[in-house]
Amino acid sequence: MKGELRYEGKAKRVYASANPQEYVVEYKDDATAFNGVKKDQISGKGAINNRITAHLYPQLEQAGIPTHFIEQLSEREQRVRAVTIVPVEVIVRNVAAGSFSKRLGVEEGTALARPVVEYCYKSDALGDPLINTDTAVALGWATPEQLTRIRELALQVQRFLTPYFAERGTRLIDFKLEFGTLESGEIVLADEISPDTCRFWDAETGEKLDKDRFRRDLGNVEGAYQEMLRRVTQAPTR
Amino acid sequence: MKGELRYEGKAKRVYASANPQEYVVEYKDDATAFNGVKKDQISGKGAINNRITAHLYPQLEQAGIPTHFIEQLSEREQRVRAVTIVPVEVIVRNVAAGSFSKRLGVEEGTALARPVVEYCYKSDALGDPLINTDTAVALGWATPEQLTRIRELALQVQRFLTPYFAERGTRLIDFKLEFGTLESGEIVLADEISPDTCRFWDAETGEKLDKDRFRRDLGNVEGAYQEMLRRVTQAPTR
Repeated sequence: MKGELRYEGKAKRVYASANPQEYVVEYKDDATAFNGVKKDQISGKGAINNRITAHLYPQLEQAGIPTHFIEQLSEREQRVRAVTIVPVEVIVRNVAAGSFSKRLGVEEGTALARPVVEYCYKSDALGDPLINTDTAVALGWATPEQLTRIRELALQVQRFLTPYFAERGTRLIDFKLEFGTLESGEIVLADEISPDTCRFWDAETGEKLDKDRFRRDLGNVEGAYQEMLRRVTQAPTR
Repeated sequence: MKGELRYEGKAKRVYASANPQEYVVEYKDDATAFNGVKKDQISGKGAINNRITAHLYPQLEQAGIPTHFIEQLSEREQRVRAVTIVPVEVIVRNVAAGSFSKRLGVEEGTALARPVVEYCYKSDALGDPLINTDTAVALGWATPEQLTRIRELALQVQRFLTPYFAERGTRLIDFKLEFGTLESGEIVLADEISPDTCRFWDAETGEKLDKDRFRRDLGNVEGAYQEMLRRVTQAPTR
C-alpha cells in the first residue's frame, strides 16, 4: 500500500502510493513542543488524531471547504490527495492564548473582538517565524491569489468549527491550519485538525484539553486527547 | 513658545503650544538601540534629524502625502500639527536587512521582489512586537479603514523616497513610519524620517549611513548622519 517516504514531520509521515495523485499519511505518537526542544510520546495520540481528522474533514468538505482527505485506512493511516504544501502556516485565533498572549501582553482567555488570522513561515530551522502576506509574496512562498483563497478558507473553517465545538461543550480558542496545492493549482486544506493543532478549553471549567497539557506539564495528556475524540464524535448536546 | 511636555520618546520630546491644534517637537541627541538596552548620545544628531525631516516632509506634502509638519522653528525644534499617534508602527522594506533577515534567514542586502510592509505594536514594554492588521483591529489599535489608508500612504512614501535617495547615491533599504490622526480623523504622516528611522547604504560601496553604525559599533556615527544630511539636501546627481 505505502510507497516511498516522501516527508517526515514531527507528528506524521507521508508516503507515496500506487496512485501518483494520492499519498498515505501515517500518524505518530511523537509529541514535540517549543520547536522540537521538548519531545515525548503520547500513547495513542496518533490513532486519536487520525480519527478526529477523519471525522472532521468530510464534514468540512460538506460545508464547502475542499480538503486533501479521502478516507481513513487503518488505526493510524489515512489516504489523502497528493498536495504540495504551501510553506505558510495559518493560525486562526478566537481567544488570546499562548504566543499571542505573551507577545502582546494580552491575558490568556481574552476573547478577541473578531477572529485574528496570523501567518507563519513553515520552517523548523527558523522556528516557524511570524510573517505577513506581503512577506510571503515577496519571498515567493505563495501568490497573492493563493493567500486570498487561504484566508477565505481559514475563516470558513473557523465559522464551521467554532459552533461545532461549542455545541459539544468546548471552547475553540485557536487552531493552526496548513494548505496545499493540487496539480491543478486548486488550494485545499491539508494536514490535520486535532488537539495537537488546536487549543480546546472545556466550556464550563476552562480545563485545557489539548497539547498545552503536554507543553505545560499539566498531566493527563492522554486523557485529554481521548476526551476530545469523544466530544468530536458525539452528537451536539447544546 | 513651548507649553507642557506631552510626551517624551527615546529621541524626541513633544510639547503643547499656545495653539491647541499644534505641538512643538524637540529633537534630542539621545540614541538608543535594542529597545533601549543600548544608550548613548550622538553629538549633533537631534539637529541633523530635525533638518532632514524638515527638508523631506514639505516635499512629501507636495507629492500628496499629508504630514504633521508645519515648519522648523530652531536648530532642534519644529512646529507640527497636534495628532494622536496610531500605536501601529509601519516598516517598509525594499531590501532584506536587520530583524527581517535574522527572523527569516534571508541574507542582508537581498532585494525584495516587491516592497514589504510590516506592522509593529508601538510598545516599549513589549519591545514593539510584530503584528498584522487583523491583530491591530481585534485589539482596538486602529480601524480597518485607518489601516488601509496607512498602508496606501506608506507605499506612497516608498515610491517618493526610493528614487529620491537613489538620485543622491543612496540605497534606501527600509524605513519606519508613524502615523497620527488629526481631530478631524484624517490620517497624517507623523514622527520623523532620518538615519534613526531608515537604513541608508551608499549605492556604490554599500557603506552603512544610518543608525546601524551605532547599533553595530561601526564607528563614525556622527559622520554618517552629517553625510546623510548633505545627501538629502543636495540636488539630484544621477
